[in-house]
Amino acid sequence: MGVNSNRVEDFSSHRITTESVMPGMEIHTVCLSPQKTTLQKLKQRLSEIFFPDDPLYRFKNQTWRKKLLLGLQFLFPIFQWAPEYRLKLLRSDIISGLTIASLAIPQGISYAKLANLPPIVGLYSSFVPPLIYAILGSSSHLAVGPVSIASLIMGSMLSETVSPKDEPILYLKLAFTATFFAGLFQASLGLLRLGFIIDFLSKANLVGFMSGAAVIVSLQQLKGLLGISHFTSKMQFIPVMSSVFKHRDEWSWQTIVMGFSFLVFMLTTRHISMKRAKLFWLSAAAPLTSVILSTLLVFCLRSKTHEISFIGHLPKGLNPPSANMLYFSVEGISVGRTFAALKNYQVDGNKEMMAIGLMNMAGSCSSCFVTTGSFSRSAVNYNAGAQTAVSNIVMATAVLVTLLFLMPLFYYTPNFILGAIIISAVIGLIDYQAAYRLWKVDKLDFLACMCSFFGVLFISVPLGLGIAVGVSVFKILLHVTRPNSLIMGNIKGTQIYHSLSRYKEASRVPSFLILAIESPIYFANSTYLQERILRWIREEDEWVKENDGSPLKCIILDMTAVTAIDTSGIDFLCELRKMLEERSLQLVLANPVGSVMEKLHQSQMLDSFGLNGIYLAVGEAVADISALWKSKPDFPKDCNETRPCIETKR
Amino acid sequence: MGVNSNRVEDFSSHRITTESVMPGMEIHTVCLSPQKTTLQKLKQRLSEIFFPDDPLYRFKNQTWRKKLLLGLQFLFPIFQWAPEYRLKLLRSDIISGLTIASLAIPQGISYAKLANLPPIVGLYSSFVPPLIYAILGSSSHLAVGPVSIASLIMGSMLSETVSPKDEPILYLKLAFTATFFAGLFQASLGLLRLGFIIDFLSKANLVGFMSGAAVIVSLQQLKGLLGISHFTSKMQFIPVMSSVFKHRDEWSWQTIVMGFSFLVFMLTTRHISMKRAKLFWLSAAAPLTSVILSTLLVFCLRSKTHEISFIGHLPKGLNPPSANMLYFSVEGISVGRTFAALKNYQVDGNKEMMAIGLMNMAGSCSSCFVTTGSFSRSAVNYNAGAQTAVSNIVMATAVLVTLLFLMPLFYYTPNFILGAIIISAVIGLIDYQAAYRLWKVDKLDFLACMCSFFGVLFISVPLGLGIAVGVSVFKILLHVTRPNSLIMGNIKGTQIYHSLSRYKEASRVPSFLILAIESPIYFANSTYLQERILRWIREEDEWVKENDGSPLKCIILDMTAVTAIDTSGIDFLCELRKMLEERSLQLVLANPVGSVMEKLHQSQMLDSFGLNGIYLAVGEAVADISALWKSKPDFPKDCNETRPCIETKR
Repeated sequence: MGVNSNRVEDFSSHRITTESVMPGMEIHTVCLSPQKTTLQKLKQRLSEIFFPDDPLYRFKNQTWRKKLLLGLQFLFPIFQWAPEYRLKLLRSDIISGLTIASLAIPQGISYAKLANLPPIVGLYSSFVPPLIYAILGSSSHLAVGPVSIASLIMGSMLSETVSPKDEPILYLKLAFTATFFAGLFQASLGLLRLGFIIDFLSKANLVGFMSGAAVIVSLQQLKGLLGISHFTSKMQFIPVMSSVFKHRDEWSWQTIVMGFSFLVFMLTTRHISMKRAKLFWLSAAAPLTSVILSTLLVFCLRSKTHEISFIGHLPKGLNPPSANMLYFSVEGISVGRTFAALKNYQVDGNKEMMAIGLMNMAGSCSSCFVTTGSFSRSAVNYNAGAQTAVSNIVMATAVLVTLLFLMPLFYYTPNFILGAIIISAVIGLIDYQAAYRLWKVDKLDFLACMCSFFGVLFISVPLGLGIAVGVSVFKILLHVTRPNSLIMGNIKGTQIYHSLSRYKEASRVPSFLILAIESPIYFANSTYLQERILRWIREEDEWVKENDGSPLKCIILDMTAVTAIDTSGIDFLCELRKMLEERSLQLVLANPVGSVMEKLHQSQMLDSFGLNGIYLAVGEAVADISALWKSKPDFPKDCNETRPCIETKR
Repeated sequence: MGVNSNRVEDFSSHRITTESVMPGMEIHTVCLSPQKTTLQKLKQRLSEIFFPDDPLYRFKNQTWRKKLLLGLQFLFPIFQWAPEYRLKLLRSDIISGLTIASLAIPQGISYAKLANLPPIVGLYSSFVPPLIYAILGSSSHLAVGPVSIASLIMGSMLSETVSPKDEPILYLKLAFTATFFAGLFQASLGLLRLGFIIDFLSKANLVGFMSGAAVIVSLQQLKGLLGISHFTSKMQFIPVMSSVFKHRDEWSWQTIVMGFSFLVFMLTTRHISMKRAKLFWLSAAAPLTSVILSTLLVFCLRSKTHEISFIGHLPKGLNPPSANMLYFSVEGISVGRTFAALKNYQVDGNKEMMAIGLMNMAGSCSSCFVTTGSFSRSAVNYNAGAQTAVSNIVMATAVLVTLLFLMPLFYYTPNFILGAIIISAVIGLIDYQAAYRLWKVDKLDFLACMCSFFGVLFISVPLGLGIAVGVSVFKILLHVTRPNSLIMGNIKGTQIYHSLSRYKEASRVPSFLILAIESPIYFANSTYLQERILRWIREEDEWVKENDGSPLKCIILDMTAVTAIDTSGIDFLCELRKMLEERSLQLVLANPVGSVMEKLHQSQMLDSFGLNGIYLAVGEAVADISALWKSKPDFPKDCNETRPCIETKR
């Protein structure tokens, strides 16, 4: 059977015909990708970076009228679901809305305290932003409002510059400014489609960060639970713990008994709800029940004990904007994405970011602080059967009623109950199981997780996060700097080549050394790869000597996993080829991917690799070269008349 | 024929036997890598990071006596080549040694001026370090001494803190300290086998950095060439150029005429030598000739013109060490490596680093400033036929003679000739051809190159380098964040699957969507990949509708190029599988590499992927699944009884 062994299209004039490589086997040509201009490539690259999901695909092949409608629906998802809204859905939405309201009211007050803000601001923030999200947001389960982590970050970052006790008005102004800029920043990132920046916070980082923040937040609540009045405003483990034990004389046993009783009650309901998803309402109702019970209790005991501190009169205030600070929010999108995954529709990260950003910008003008999607309340919302964003509207209405009529009832709400609510809300963030899974699966991910955990706990919130991002990026770089390379062998009776160390069925091909490189070849690893490959060859030579094998004649680099190459990588290939040539060893590439072929072509390396240099598959390379050796026994010396490698100057 | 289709070893009990997948075709098991403990893995990982070249392999299976000798030779390569040294080699070594000495003497004086140091220090630095390198160094062509870039960096960094004019002694002390610490740092990096840190300076960066430095250095020489006495000590383009044009009244026509004549002379010889390698001695001899000629000229004209400045009396000084500054040197190793590549022996980067480090530490105690391997002089050394490090010893001897007897002869050596020598030496570093090649092959590499070029030119030397490293790292991250994914098709008559867009021979397999992912799956790209894959599926559905194809039933992910996966990546696979399951689409993995299989196993994803989830090759997956469909027509719905995906909590 004749064999057609033209390889790179450029060399079609050089076809060589060896006799019967293997009956029925055909050697295929390695193609270059279709030619593109620099501009086309740039355009494609940019669209992959910024529009991977092709957000405008819905607009293709539509009338302009339809396009307008689609555009409106794209910007305001409410136009998408509102026309199809049925009364049947309203019932579930009202139930779920009231359920999350019963969580949002006590949590709103608590989180505002966490951010060192007046409690009323927490309620404001549970009113306006959900309404705006209902119009702009694309998720139907995201319960919007203040969240623990964002409140913690806000509190810790702001109190570093301004004391909330000494300058409460300035602090409040700063908080609204920070909210505005957080919103502006989120909206711009979304508009510029830079949402992917947030992908650089890996899950491992988030687990560590959230757990650390939850520990700090919980420890801080000891202030309310123990009844301490002099407490540090710092957010690190050591000052918080020393505050707790320094002021032991301020501990009040009444506060401690009641606080921990309610904490145990809420943790128990939480535990039951987690065991049985149907009883989710138990944990959902617990905070409000606790607030009511504890308020009544304090009201009854008001004449007997003066040691229990309570909220007192809730002041009202308007919204003075100012300008000073920036702040990133991560939770919203990742929460939205998690719920998107559960319900199997795609949340457009960038569009969600715009919605949440606009919501915060509007919020900052109506006395709200940073809000986003709350993980725990969204879970309750989902479990309670929320169907659309109407549940957010119902919640906002409930908060409105509270704001208008029920505020005086909170006068005697004790501070310890706020602490207990926060602890029972954030304790779920301490995800030791996830940390254990990280340890089991990926030690470096676990390291990143621990770095952010201890960074948040002992250094500071932003620095802890920074360290964690650093570890994650370092991990990527390490993988690139020290890539895997492995010897492959043939699996008998097939054209499949696989790792010798992994597959016992795989066996060495005599006279060949087949190496797979599992990484792009970059400046950061080309030196390493050179040293490593020379070592593979040396070890192979030793093996051949020990086992009386046939001497090495050809090195095949399987380039399947080499997904990119840069100029240093090309120089590496060039040098390697020269080195091997001097030892009468042939270097052959198998299956270079499109972009690598292109680079090889542009740098004229294809020419220097010549005829027998590049094959479509390892199997074809082995077959063709073996056949060539059979027909020309002294092949490696004879046929090395490939063109010289392009000199690389420094 | 019976078909054996057990896949992952864990599932061997679940074997299913489908009838005749394809006559003669056998479905293979995907294996896990051999089990290893965490400690073993850590050990292997660390040895790959720090000892990729297995530097101790020579010591294996040797007697302790031999080991001692090898150890001695390893630390002091002179013991390796000295016993085999023949008188025949001496002749070439003397010729090459004298040739590089004729370059080293004028260049040493010039580079010392460049570093704002007394000229004599340049000669000291061409004497002691070469002797030490001859004992410790492993390269036989590296010509050691002061180099332009290192001198520039030293001058620019030191003069930022201390003025060389106002406090010459302190400046000198600082220079020696810097040299000492540079040496200490290099030696420690080498000892700790951290030499790979230098790999993060890509070739593109070096091209840009060197060119920028060469431009700045050349412009600075206008001081000497134009005869300006008031000149800025800054190293940026703008202050240097304004210095040149502000002091136009100081320009001296005699200096200009003579300076540029000698510059043209040296550039001409350089040009000739580059055209004809045999005439290398022309450019090698030009600097010394120019120095002699110009000194004679100035000596003759000394009474007639007072406008030409000359070196004057060369002072002597001892070596006072002190402590203040650190400094990295890159040139040495990369130069050594380049020559290693030319002569096809392997320079141990880390060991070279130790040798150069020790050389600098010793140098700093004998009035030398930073020295390393000079690229241009090493090239001359190589061309002049240097055989061993003896050429360095010959050069040092020549410098010694100069220091002892010939110093008074330099009294009338004019400053303009030093400038001309520096320009003609550094002009080769402006590698516009390399920059053009970068542009042609890799636009982002070109960008990195330009960043470091303009960074050095307009901002500062260290910042320019920093920006360039940043761009290079960003490039790696970008590749990871937005990986390629492509649709594959079958090449008829083979089991090979390849990109549809690249290979016209490749054709779609009905009901299958075969996607290759060309990158590790990380936290940084898992969101992107999810969006991108859903888009591929959407586009495939549209294509099927338009072309009346058979509806999509199975997605195969070709994981060959997915060289690593982290916990976020595993979650991504889990979510993707769930999403596709809800659409009655099956997700199948083909050929996951060892480390990925291991992670899938550890995270219990293997269990959730179940029986028909993982195959050794795309071809086997297509064959097996098609056969299954034939035997059970409603397969995708029936057989999805795989175990549920492990819940991923946040």
